[in-house]
Amino acid sequence: MSISAARAELHRPTGRRPGENQTRHDILAAARAQFAQKGFAGATLRAIAQAAGVDTALIHHYFASKEGMFAAAIEESFDSGRFLTDVGDSPARIATSIVTRYFDLWESAESQQPLMAIMRSAIENDRARQILLNFMSNEIYDVLAPILGQDEARLRISFVGSQLLGAAMLRYIIRLEPLASMDCAQLVAVLSTTVERYIGEDLPSRPAA
Amino acid sequence: MSISAARAELHRPTGRRPGENQTRHDILAAARAQFAQKGFAGATLRAIAQAAGVDTALIHHYFASKEGMFAAAIEESFDSGRFLTDVGDSPARIATSIVTRYFDLWESAESQQPLMAIMRSAIENDRARQILLNFMSNEIYDVLAPILGQDEARLRISFVGSQLLGAAMLRYIIRLEPLASMDCAQLVAVLSTTVERYIGEDLPSRPAA
Repeated sequence: MSISAARAELHRPTGRRPGENQTRHDILAAARAQFAQKGFAGATLRAIAQAAGVDTALIHHYFASKEGMFAAAIEESFDSGRFLTDVGDSPARIATSIVTRYFDLWESAESQQPLMAIMRSAIENDRARQILLNFMSNEIYDVLAPILGQDEARLRISFVGSQLLGAAMLRYIIRLEPLASMDCAQLVAVLSTTVERYIGEDLPSRPAA
Repeated sequence: MSISAARAELHRPTGRRPGENQTRHDILAAARAQFAQKGFAGATLRAIAQAAGVDTALIHHYFASKEGMFAAAIEESFDSGRFLTDVGDSPARIATSIVTRYFDLWESAESQQPLMAIMRSAIENDRARQILLNFMSNEIYDVLAPILGQDEARLRISFVGSQLLGAAMLRYIIRLEPLASMDCAQLVAVLSTTVERYIGEDLPSRPAA
């Protein structure tokens, strides 16, 4: 199944029997736990099925493949529909919305482990990296670029991504102090001003003399 | 051997026979290649010795352990002595020096693979992570904090680190476009203004109302 087919499946609204959504949710919870424990390469459909108490065939029915399941885990981890809804109408508001929501996800006990697993997997494994890139392109760029409505929207968004990725890596994975233990509200405040610059100000095009 | 002992060993200036430095250099080159290929966990002293054409005992003589060798590989990859020498005397100059030198290392064919290996290893392996943290604390914080000479120097440096780490991850490892292919001089210009802010301006202490 392609990524977009996996996404269509994810949002398929009709024709489900009661309990289907719950089963799909249980499988995805087991998948996120497996990815967190074993990484993308180490996770197996068989182990995920066993942990969810379902037959492997049911995983194929919902997600088609490990790739489809990883794409769904990324979507669920970032909750991208909600993540980029009503972000605001000025660079300052958009920046604060995005940075606050991003760290809400990282600070949440439920989503932190799966987010770490996604990052680690994308760094270690080329297929996982491609799936993450697809997600960023389809869910982040395509949704955010029209909101920003400026030249170089993709370039601006990739600078935002670089700062948010690096801050999460240092705080939650490398755990460099004082970043690792600092108050999250201050972290959000500092990074929001950086993100506001990336989406609202002119970007330097060459080194200052 | 502790990290500091490994560093003392690295800089030991006297009592060497001619050729010793070359041997040490050859071993370290083999080690960096092994870390790049296999990661910290997968690299073995035996394979490194074989690739360098030396006896494993010689590795113990120079580096004591895989940890000592990884610490030396980090030092050599970042070339930290040169990296933080004569960085300048204003936030703008310090920022431009650091960002330019950092991306010079990443763009260099010789150092890019070992840098990737260090990043990947620190993300995957807890001992490698600790060694990188020690390096950051001893070589980056301790050298840079007096140059910055400001309140919250460590906090400022960790924000700088978060931006530089995230940009390298997205450009060289995840390879997100347009960041991955953009002109490096423009990348350096944009990030230098961010780094200048982190080291020179007041950091917001709480979210804006």
